[in-house]
Amino acid sequence: MAMFIASRRIWSGSTTTSYLAASFRFRWYSSSFREEKDTFGPIQVPSDKLWGAQTQRSLQNFEIGGDRERMPEPIIRAFGILKKCAAKVNMEYGLDPSIGKAIMQAAQEVAEGKLNDHFPLVVWQTGSGTQSNMNANEVIANRAAEILGHKRGGKFVHPNDHVMHIAAAMEINSGLIPKLKQLHSTLHTKILRFSSPPPGISFSVEFKDIVKIGRTHTQDATPLTLGQEFSGYTTQVKYGIDRVSCTLPRIYQLAQGGTAVGTGLNTKKGFDVKIASAVDEETNLPFVTAENKFEALAAHDAFVETSGALNTVGVSLVKIANDIRFLGSGPRCGLGELILPENEPGSSIMPGKVNPTQCEAITMVCAQVMGNHVAVTVGGSNGHFELNVFKPVIASNLLHSVRLLGDASASFAKNCVRGIQANRERISKLLHESLMLVTSLNPKIGYDNAAAVAKTAHKEGSTLKDAALKLGVLSSKEFDQLVVPENMIGPSD
Amino acid sequence: MAMFIASRRIWSGSTTTSYLAASFRFRWYSSSFREEKDTFGPIQVPSDKLWGAQTQRSLQNFEIGGDRERMPEPIIRAFGILKKCAAKVNMEYGLDPSIGKAIMQAAQEVAEGKLNDHFPLVVWQTGSGTQSNMNANEVIANRAAEILGHKRGGKFVHPNDHVMHIAAAMEINSGLIPKLKQLHSTLHTKILRFSSPPPGISFSVEFKDIVKIGRTHTQDATPLTLGQEFSGYTTQVKYGIDRVSCTLPRIYQLAQGGTAVGTGLNTKKGFDVKIASAVDEETNLPFVTAENKFEALAAHDAFVETSGALNTVGVSLVKIANDIRFLGSGPRCGLGELILPENEPGSSIMPGKVNPTQCEAITMVCAQVMGNHVAVTVGGSNGHFELNVFKPVIASNLLHSVRLLGDASASFAKNCVRGIQANRERISKLLHESLMLVTSLNPKIGYDNAAAVAKTAHKEGSTLKDAALKLGVLSSKEFDQLVVPENMIGPSD
Amino acid sequence: MAMFIASRRIWSGSTTTSYLAASFRFRWYSSSFREEKDTFGPIQVPSDKLWGAQTQRSLQNFEIGGDRERMPEPIIRAFGILKKCAAKVNMEYGLDPSIGKAIMQAAQEVAEGKLNDHFPLVVWQTGSGTQSNMNANEVIANRAAEILGHKRGGKFVHPNDHVMHIAAAMEINSGLIPKLKQLHSTLHTKILRFSSPPPGISFSVEFKDIVKIGRTHTQDATPLTLGQEFSGYTTQVKYGIDRVSCTLPRIYQLAQGGTAVGTGLNTKKGFDVKIASAVDEETNLPFVTAENKFEALAAHDAFVETSGALNTVGVSLVKIANDIRFLGSGPRCGLGELILPENEPGSSIMPGKVNPTQCEAITMVCAQVMGNHVAVTVGGSNGHFELNVFKPVIASNLLHSVRLLGDASASFAKNCVRGIQANRERISKLLHESLMLVTSLNPKIGYDNAAAVAKTAHKEGSTLKDAALKLGVLSSKEFDQLVVPENMIGPSD
Amino acid sequence: MAMFIASRRIWSGSTTTSYLAASFRFRWYSSSFREEKDTFGPIQVPSDKLWGAQTQRSLQNFEIGGDRERMPEPIIRAFGILKKCAAKVNMEYGLDPSIGKAIMQAAQEVAEGKLNDHFPLVVWQTGSGTQSNMNANEVIANRAAEILGHKRGGKFVHPNDHVMHIAAAMEINSGLIPKLKQLHSTLHTKILRFSSPPPGISFSVEFKDIVKIGRTHTQDATPLTLGQEFSGYTTQVKYGIDRVSCTLPRIYQLAQGGTAVGTGLNTKKGFDVKIASAVDEETNLPFVTAENKFEALAAHDAFVETSGALNTVGVSLVKIANDIRFLGSGPRCGLGELILPENEPGSSIMPGKVNPTQCEAITMVCAQVMGNHVAVTVGGSNGHFELNVFKPVIASNLLHSVRLLGDASASFAKNCVRGIQANRERISKLLHESLMLVTSLNPKIGYDNAAAVAKTAHKEGSTLKDAALKLGVLSSKEFDQLVVPENMIGPSD
Repeated sequence: MAMFIASRRIWSGSTTTSYLAASFRFRWYSSSFREEKDTFGPIQVPSDKLWGAQTQRSLQNFEIGGDRERMPEPIIRAFGILKKCAAKVNMEYGLDPSIGKAIMQAAQEVAEGKLNDHFPLVVWQTGSGTQSNMNANEVIANRAAEILGHKRGGKFVHPNDHVMHIAAAMEINSGLIPKLKQLHSTLHTKILRFSSPPPGISFSVEFKDIVKIGRTHTQDATPLTLGQEFSGYTTQVKYGIDRVSCTLPRIYQLAQGGTAVGTGLNTKKGFDVKIASAVDEETNLPFVTAENKFEALAAHDAFVETSGALNTVGVSLVKIANDIRFLGSGPRCGLGELILPENEPGSSIMPGKVNPTQCEAITMVCAQVMGNHVAVTVGGSNGHFELNVFKPVIASNLLHSVRLLGDASASFAKNCVRGIQANRERISKLLHESLMLVTSLNPKIGYDNAAAVAKTAHKEGSTLKDAALKLGVLSSKEFDQLVVPENMIGPSD
Repeated sequence: MAMFIASRRIWSGSTTTSYLAASFRFRWYSSSFREEKDTFGPIQVPSDKLWGAQTQRSLQNFEIGGDRERMPEPIIRAFGILKKCAAKVNMEYGLDPSIGKAIMQAAQEVAEGKLNDHFPLVVWQTGSGTQSNMNANEVIANRAAEILGHKRGGKFVHPNDHVMHIAAAMEINSGLIPKLKQLHSTLHTKILRFSSPPPGISFSVEFKDIVKIGRTHTQDATPLTLGQEFSGYTTQVKYGIDRVSCTLPRIYQLAQGGTAVGTGLNTKKGFDVKIASAVDEETNLPFVTAENKFEALAAHDAFVETSGALNTVGVSLVKIANDIRFLGSGPRCGLGELILPENEPGSSIMPGKVNPTQCEAITMVCAQVMGNHVAVTVGGSNGHFELNVFKPVIASNLLHSVRLLGDASASFAKNCVRGIQANRERISKLLHESLMLVTSLNPKIGYDNAAAVAKTAHKEGSTLKDAALKLGVLSSKEFDQLVVPENMIGPSD
Repeated sequence: MAMFIASRRIWSGSTTTSYLAASFRFRWYSSSFREEKDTFGPIQVPSDKLWGAQTQRSLQNFEIGGDRERMPEPIIRAFGILKKCAAKVNMEYGLDPSIGKAIMQAAQEVAEGKLNDHFPLVVWQTGSGTQSNMNANEVIANRAAEILGHKRGGKFVHPNDHVMHIAAAMEINSGLIPKLKQLHSTLHTKILRFSSPPPGISFSVEFKDIVKIGRTHTQDATPLTLGQEFSGYTTQVKYGIDRVSCTLPRIYQLAQGGTAVGTGLNTKKGFDVKIASAVDEETNLPFVTAENKFEALAAHDAFVETSGALNTVGVSLVKIANDIRFLGSGPRCGLGELILPENEPGSSIMPGKVNPTQCEAITMVCAQVMGNHVAVTVGGSNGHFELNVFKPVIASNLLHSVRLLGDASASFAKNCVRGIQANRERISKLLHESLMLVTSLNPKIGYDNAAAVAKTAHKEGSTLKDAALKLGVLSSKEFDQLVVPENMIGPSD
Repeated sequence: MAMFIASRRIWSGSTTTSYLAASFRFRWYSSSFREEKDTFGPIQVPSDKLWGAQTQRSLQNFEIGGDRERMPEPIIRAFGILKKCAAKVNMEYGLDPSIGKAIMQAAQEVAEGKLNDHFPLVVWQTGSGTQSNMNANEVIANRAAEILGHKRGGKFVHPNDHVMHIAAAMEINSGLIPKLKQLHSTLHTKILRFSSPPPGISFSVEFKDIVKIGRTHTQDATPLTLGQEFSGYTTQVKYGIDRVSCTLPRIYQLAQGGTAVGTGLNTKKGFDVKIASAVDEETNLPFVTAENKFEALAAHDAFVETSGALNTVGVSLVKIANDIRFLGSGPRCGLGELILPENEPGSSIMPGKVNPTQCEAITMVCAQVMGNHVAVTVGGSNGHFELNVFKPVIASNLLHSVRLLGDASASFAKNCVRGIQANRERISKLLHESLMLVTSLNPKIGYDNAAAVAKTAHKEGSTLKDAALKLGVLSSKEFDQLVVPENMIGPSD
């Protein structure tokens, strides 16, 4: 039996010991190969693999990046869906039903991820991704043959466009959006007022009523509530979901039926509509045939647009995670307003040290998303004539961003946001020390006196109250009546 | 009278002659200054300028980039609109009508660009843009005073958010979208079929009926019409307009009324709605008050999102302009399918050399837009707590992209696309030389014979027809009946 | 006399009042024009301008972006230098000395910036920048003619490459590097120990000896000195200067002499070496002729490389400015370890509020530099065959970054870093409250007891000392002997 | 025995069938677990894995991105090297030699990649990468324990900095640079003149002597040789190697010995120098201890700088690959000057169709590198105080770029460049059809007559010679004597 294993290639670098420079390439230790053929002639393929000649050639011609660079799994699964749908529609156009059913069964196995091991090709191949398409054809044909006979599957030109669209739409709908909603609802939970907290809500303090110091230019400013602060984050995530959703109508357009250059040569009229409809049915997502097949094949603007929305989501999440890590900084020498959940030891010697590792992970993810977006942009701008040949790099970066943003949002919600508690004492202490509250005195003692109070307090390091009493502009009781941060958190009547 | 002129600063670099290293700074040759004051004390301001102390301080503290880096003009004009609206609403809340009217008149002058010379501050100032706001306040107050008296205008905190939104929405609606529509309709005109071309349509050939070779992977592929090819470009631009428009709802949200940290402290209830309504009325654009003022002040996600849409438009335009320059390459040694309008001499010695300079200008613009998008992204991700302090860099890059994309689209439409003609002879020659037409023979003579024909033609450099006749697989008449590119541009019945 | 003024174009947008949509275009109110000619025929040029037909055509064909988008001034000045050198070398090859001297004089005026008003073209023109070259030729020829006669200057093909290199090298050497050195020396001054501070050094406290709490993951960590912290910044700026300098050897390579495609057709042997030598002499910078003219014309990798170095400098400056703004946050509710100079009122009501506006300006500049770098990268990657036609966008973005980084560094040094003072009391308070000092107790009382001390202090909000005494593991005297932050700032012997 | 396998998680998305939404998470089907402990208490770890409690916690807290997102293997191997060196140095400082040797042996196994399966953590973890460090400590300790006993390895704070530097330096020296050199020498071989081609050189034509048309602005221009054209590419790659090498001195600086905040607390004096020296010895690369440990921990500017150099290499490779794919476009309807090697069928029906798939793969790689560079830049700019916590994302993107650029260069050299042949006939045909050769006639018949010849030829579609004879300005013999492209490829004497 053939074994498809990784073995280390020893580079002959003169400046380093050889084992350090080791990298990986694919090799087969196999007691059995079979011969496959294409128009270039015969080629040896491991017996236990379903792929054929064209897959094998790509594998040998593109030794770039190694195993980690394989085509993303959602792409492989989308191939399965598309091939299944194509077989179904082709049966309407006269494909032999027994063959058709075998193909559908084989394609279904691909869609379910059961044949992942038979998709060894990397992202860095032909820019149309045709080699992965041929990989799918070869695998499905050989798998169908196992059930049925030996007839190879038909050829579909440039199916990668459709596959990209199917994979992206599915990952966004099933992965990213539910996970962003999870983050949204977790954030939203923090700003509700509970008479009794629901089970699983670990904080006893209601953010909605906690008045705290505001900060602009990173400097002390007028107060707001912690709930108001978190409502900004909640709104950011909500808009992020809207932003991504807004771009989906153009993702739902399938170029299938355009064939090589968009004209639909070699298809039957109506095939394009039927295949889109079959994909709709298979995925429960509103796919339609593309309004203009030439645009759909020659450009991937829809991906660039969606990547731009993901980039915006990344920007929002950086803001939120940065705020949370700074508000949770300390425990003694930072801002210390939030207590972040302790998920792992920050240090074996420092009790109270909680590193905001979830914030770190999600902001790193966002940096990656910003970088991926540039890769998508560069790829998207480089289409020529009837075909954009940066499909694999565009698809893999978009799917990378979709996956990372979704996973990181869920992890952040679950392992960080859910467990955040307000440090009420610290918040109150900072609020009442703030010189900014002096604004409340203006109506009573006038601007000049209020300024004098603030300046005195700042200079002497004293409280506003102490300064006011020292200057004799107010009684203690008057001060307490006037300086009420709770009255500073909204417009006046 | 004070003269505000630029004079060269001589650097004392030792490695270059001093005049080379010259840069610019502002200096005043003035026979008269007046003293203005703020809480830092008095400062000298040129007598003929309307700005005050805070503008003067910023001017002296931020000598960064020189005159070209001044706040974009649409921002200045938007300040005028906002201040006018604020005065109007404040009159409802009790502002003295005679003062209010003077402020409205002064603000109107700012909105019309009449006082541009009084806005000397650069983008690189405080990150809230407050110094430009104070600039507007000082100019409007002094201008109102000229009409009326000497009372300074009131202070509005962080109006830059609103101003950014007003300026962006106006520039997009009045500049970018009409110009993208201009490009769209110019492209669309190329693919219509005219019984008689309308006046001003310079091409005599109908793109819709011109069959040409398609190209995938930059290699010869199956045919399509020139009209089909251009319909892809037309669709790209149409979607681009949709993409930008989709982001406007979040641009129309104004944070005005949120004041310092989003709470609305120091405003009256209802002020936020009234001011948005006044801006709507003033601009005829559907501005509303922001749903969440905390989000609106602390983040500029709406700008990042819109910039993402502009980035996508840039990607589309690169594709279109690249195709046009390659299809128009030549005149003898390129593809030569398109004849681009000659706008200027390409070379004094080379008749027929037309450099595709409009393509060059617009693709350079798109490179800038991609870069500006990264600047907006980085700025957008760096907000902290209750305020994002990258407002000026975000606003100026977005407005830069809006302006450049609009202008370049209009220039490209007018000076390039409109005048493109098809080189029918060249297109026909390439089409009929193509080996790709051999696909038409498959049904008649079978794949193996067809392949033999193509291989023979390729090897011998002959035509398909010559090869077919030589191999004796078809008669000349049969060949002509089968190989009809016009039948290859759509699906079959 | 012709007046070249800006007038507002009224767009006919239906959704906004027309004055809002106003933009600018060039128009001439002139009582006199002269006719200029090129191979396209005659064209009207304002009489008081020195430019000719080709400049006029570009002006009319590229209405993109308006006046602010004019070719950067260092480019114009570099044209002057290059044309002067070319005339000088051409005199060696037989150019009439009287003509040559007139050209040199006219070119010198361009180099000195005296003829800036005669260079109206924008960046968004032909991608070779040839139109600006023709602008220079036309201006110099007409200016030389004013002195001498009417003979036009000779044509130099694609001089923009050389001009880009000359402009960049000069701006980096005369502007950026001296200003980075200024920032470096200002930072360095903060960490020296003075027996008596030199004049102009405003701080009385020696950063070198101030022990403070360190922070990792934004959380409290072991101590270091403020001088150590600033030494990191100083090193970053020093390396930044090294980074930029390392890229200069490739900027010093001039393609001049390669002519149209790099072969040097139409030049004399040795011309390339002589012209580089003349530029070296003129600028005092070590310019040489490019090793390979084909690479030098077809690619602008040297600019992409230098832009990458500027991007790194931007990254460094963001780190430094962010630290300074957070360490200076407060005055009461932030970290408050640094006191930043007050340059302008932060708020009229809040004494002590100092907005870190210089930090904001420089970090915005860095966001712009990162964006510009992407524009340069995209432009640089789009060269085709013998010429890269993204020269103007590459050059203008690089020069923009060079200028902004230089100016912002100087402004930051002068208006922020120089005046920073340490808030000794605050630093000391935070340091001694930190739980991190417990590490010092390990050797004496063992890990378990030390951990108990820290946990007790954290739980009770008390000091380490109080906790230690309460637990009875140490005497007060012992504690004071062991817990000495000053002993924690270096490795042990 | 425990099995560590991937199982699919079923999302409960309502809009898609569940199997489509499947993703992966780690699960253990194990008949045996062991308990490990850290300061947070006990936790179950699969018995057959060497990792401990902290690794297990990270694995459970950061379910982000799945298996493909594991820490890059060069990082794992670098951990091995570093731990080995640390053990060696610690033996000098008193570590028990028997323990030290066991640690060195275990670390050596990590360095050789033998224990890769025991490093399950993903990039998206704590921003210091400390969890991977603990992973290394736990694995090495447990492995050493297997040999020896149960004593755990010592803790080294923030070793990720050093590990990043070691991994990057090794990958660049052993992978990227040798592969770039391979591309360089393959390109260089194409431009040599051979009396007899060496074995393995597949082209029979000497590029050096093939005169061809040049192209500027994608338009026909004056001639050059194919060798000159390729010499530009060769120079680009050569400079690319220089660019990357220039940044290495700062990569060779190790922060090891700085411990938590750069002070070196808890190390012995001299440890930093010794460890760098041990790493130098182990890797044969000139590592030194960092000049300033504070800079080295708090910033990753060295990585941003190197990434900038890789970005420049990417830009160069895009230019080269684009030229090659356009020069090889056709076979009939493109430029057709180059014949690219056929590596796989382009189409089953189109003989002669060779898709430039290697060009596509390498340009996609470059798009990725540009994107990765932005991720590195964003990460690099976000360090705060004494530690940058974007280490994993910075390291993984840099190593990704290093790996992809190296592999793609080698693949491009081997599978594309090496086999490129010149299409001499096509090159000659285009050259002689070009109107640009008319420049040669100027000296003999004057500019006006030459222009007339060119215009006539362009208008009539005839050759220059035909046009010249028709206009009667030259004899056939005179034309042939004057129009010699071979004389147009250099400066004149």
